[in-house]
Amino acid sequence: MTSNRKQLHLNAFVMPNGHHEAAWRHPSTDPHRAATLKHYVDIARTAERGKLDSLFLADGVALWGNVRYNSHTLFEPLTLLSALAGATERIGLIATASTTYNEPYHLARKFASLDHLSGGRAGWNIVTSAGEDEARNFNRDARPSHALRYERATEFVEVAKKLWDSWADDAAVIDKASGVYADTDLIHPIDHDGPHFQVRGPLNIPRPVQGHPLLVQAGSSETGKEYAARFAEAVFTAQQTFAEGKAFYDDVKGRLANYGRSPEEIKILPGISPILGRTEAEAKEREAELNALITPAYGVRQLSTMLDHDLTPYPLDGPLPDVGTFTEGAQSRFELVTGLARRENLTIRQLIERLAGGRGHRVFAGTAAQVADQLEHWFTEGAADGFNIMPPTLPGGLEDFVDLVVPELRRRGLFRTEYTATTLRGHYGLARPVNRTTVTTVKEHAA
Amino acid sequence: MTSNRKQLHLNAFVMPNGHHEAAWRHPSTDPHRAATLKHYVDIARTAERGKLDSLFLADGVALWGNVRYNSHTLFEPLTLLSALAGATERIGLIATASTTYNEPYHLARKFASLDHLSGGRAGWNIVTSAGEDEARNFNRDARPSHALRYERATEFVEVAKKLWDSWADDAAVIDKASGVYADTDLIHPIDHDGPHFQVRGPLNIPRPVQGHPLLVQAGSSETGKEYAARFAEAVFTAQQTFAEGKAFYDDVKGRLANYGRSPEEIKILPGISPILGRTEAEAKEREAELNALITPAYGVRQLSTMLDHDLTPYPLDGPLPDVGTFTEGAQSRFELVTGLARRENLTIRQLIERLAGGRGHRVFAGTAAQVADQLEHWFTEGAADGFNIMPPTLPGGLEDFVDLVVPELRRRGLFRTEYTATTLRGHYGLARPVNRTTVTTVKEHAA
Ligand SMILES: Cc1cc2nc3c(=O)[nH]c(=O)nc-3n(C[C@H](O)[C@H](O)[C@H](O)COP(=O)(O)O)c2cc1C
Ligand SMILES: Cc1cc2nc3c(=O)[nH]c(=O)nc-3n(C[C@H](O)[C@H](O)[C@H](O)COP(=O)(O)O)c2cc1C
Repeated sequence: MTSNRKQLHLNAFVMPNGHHEAAWRHPSTDPHRAATLKHYVDIARTAERGKLDSLFLADGVALWGNVRYNSHTLFEPLTLLSALAGATERIGLIATASTTYNEPYHLARKFASLDHLSGGRAGWNIVTSAGEDEARNFNRDARPSHALRYERATEFVEVAKKLWDSWADDAAVIDKASGVYADTDLIHPIDHDGPHFQVRGPLNIPRPVQGHPLLVQAGSSETGKEYAARFAEAVFTAQQTFAEGKAFYDDVKGRLANYGRSPEEIKILPGISPILGRTEAEAKEREAELNALITPAYGVRQLSTMLDHDLTPYPLDGPLPDVGTFTEGAQSRFELVTGLARRENLTIRQLIERLAGGRGHRVFAGTAAQVADQLEHWFTEGAADGFNIMPPTLPGGLEDFVDLVVPELRRRGLFRTEYTATTLRGHYGLARPVNRTTVTTVKEHAA
Repeated sequence: MTSNRKQLHLNAFVMPNGHHEAAWRHPSTDPHRAATLKHYVDIARTAERGKLDSLFLADGVALWGNVRYNSHTLFEPLTLLSALAGATERIGLIATASTTYNEPYHLARKFASLDHLSGGRAGWNIVTSAGEDEARNFNRDARPSHALRYERATEFVEVAKKLWDSWADDAAVIDKASGVYADTDLIHPIDHDGPHFQVRGPLNIPRPVQGHPLLVQAGSSETGKEYAARFAEAVFTAQQTFAEGKAFYDDVKGRLANYGRSPEEIKILPGISPILGRTEAEAKEREAELNALITPAYGVRQLSTMLDHDLTPYPLDGPLPDVGTFTEGAQSRFELVTGLARRENLTIRQLIERLAGGRGHRVFAGTAAQVADQLEHWFTEGAADGFNIMPPTLPGGLEDFVDLVVPELRRRGLFRTEYTATTLRGHYGLARPVNRTTVTTVKEHAA
């Protein structure tokens, strides 16, 4: 069944035990199994069974949060997604990697490698590593400033694109008879010489199947949005209300023209953590059951990190103290959290509960039809091109979504019943980038 | 059938189309398929069917050799081996990674991730990146000196070990009832502050299944051998003759005592490229068939790189000119090649042919029994603990080895018929390293 309606896009955001901070304590999860490849293979296959566009792994290069109470990451995303490449056929595989503590040659190459291994299914969530702890693992006392991180991220992606384009698409001739493996006239050094990077190239792997892996971004500050408008093809974002979501959507889409891009060239995917029940009451009960497992000490630590402000000295049942204005770290999350506390006049404990489901992302408890209503509303009213699905528990929360919400979206003609493309770009309806630096030519030896 | 004889170890060294430089032109290979994951899955499963200890991927962080005539690497090893982790059950997975152009936090973490994903099968071939081209992809005009590279490699591995040990083996408590995910008293920053690296830690992944991944090394210079004696648990080496192999073996084993290690703690694996035939004549014919496909221009380029000396101006059928003495790059390969040319008084063309099969590694064409004789001789006479098998073509050359030579070695009681361990360390009979920095303690909360 194909629909005439515009189709929405779905990404599964995978965390070991799910997105609710107490997920690992829930009776339905098995945190020991979450430390094995099998667990992720099952999740990836469930997402693929639902014909989701992609799955996504977040990342940080330091121990996140307070591991006494939870574990957010475990496997390094590029290694885990490579392992999943062989266990899946169609679903896109999006890995987070930092531009602040990596070298473009390594990352360009690893993403090219994953793209080839998966037959064109690699995506890169570009992050600038807002954490102070991350700097200390890489020969620094403190993180570089927000502005400097984005400056480096800009040059980083430019270098990566040049590296992916350092082989023409048809450079690998592989002519056994003549003994020509690759046409070296179609492979060029990039000779990049910039303020942050000096990279000669060429890359040591042919141009990715997709040309470039899908470029994803999740910064929501002014600089972050400008960066997204310039480079990103998909944007993850945390938006609490439809009005905010709509404003963000229009804002980012409106910036694309400045970079000679059309609004369709970027897909905006707000996050939602759907807590599902057969009835609304059952869904609310599940939510309460998860919230009852929250460890407040963990929440205070998380909140302190988000706000870059130590909240441990303040009473849990008192108001959020004055945390000043944003200085460093993740600007958009700072504003979302302080905005929420102010708007609803929440105590620290209440704020922690509101954030426990999705660290600032929207949590919605309801029936499959109610969740589908939400998605349809945001999608049809121009606040989203699709969604970043953040199951409260895993694998159960994703199974529920695929078995209950996906069929409902299909009944409404909003979501595919079969994959129509083989690549991640194909799923999102995005073009394969033309190679602007190493142009294919008709060669004599082909005659 | 178990044997009372000491068992030898076998590693499959995997290159896209095989080790002979003309392998990709041979009728039995499919270089297009060698650019797909399927190809490597088949190879890995063949090696596992033969119960080999491990498979190994070489690597460089620049385009190797002259890609006009051949392609040595393709996929980045950590991504490819992660993909193979899910497609195999028992075989060890050894990835090459450079200490000169990486950061210890990233590498320690990726190897820990691969080790967890594979259930304890990760190994790291530690290299210092001898190539001049590699430096230019990482913000440098020239490679650091041989001495400086090894200095950095020393501190690099010390940091990596501290990071792997930053979690006690039982730090992940995962107690749903109390809400304690990990015992943070058993997870420590490493606070490393050295001349090359300042790394706070801890790592953001639990201690590897194997404690540390297997540490492999292949430097054969004085500094390289000293490094191996200090850190390595397996050594790859290129040795042309039994006498040289035996001298190298005794030399390296003899150095271990200086580091408080016993000779059994390191496994020495000389390389051999076995060209197999049902008869000796058939094997020699296959060798000639491969040599006939050599492109001399490629060989000259390869030789020039090995000797760090441009040989293109010299006549192919003239002698090797004076290339001086070793200055920079890969010292042991320089000496092997100049020694071979001198000893046998070879022209450049002859030298190229001698190197085409294995870039300086030993090539042996013969029947399965003759190959087994060679391996048995080196093994029983103390020149090897096992071998680095470098199939001339892939997948065919490995299938031949597994189907013809492995059964012969078993008949002689020299090689396992079944895996007796589940980890890479287990296969090589090496102990799991004790955690020296973060010691497990009996905790009150366990009561
Ligand atoms: C859905 C989503 C996922 C994110 N994942 C990561 C991540 O995995 N690692 C990371 O360092 N930052 C992550 N971020 C943070 C952003 O990439 C960005 O660094 C942060 O919002 C700060 O940028 P800004 O100041 O422009 O908002 C994520 C943000 C969102 C909305
Ligand atoms: C079997 C074998 C495999 C090797 N693989 C690599 C490799 O993948 N990448 C690399 O840069 N060097 C590789 N080398 C080179 C050594 O790691 C080392 O860098 C080189 O021998 C120079 O060190 P040396 O001067 O101590 O000999 C290999 C050597 C041997 C014998």
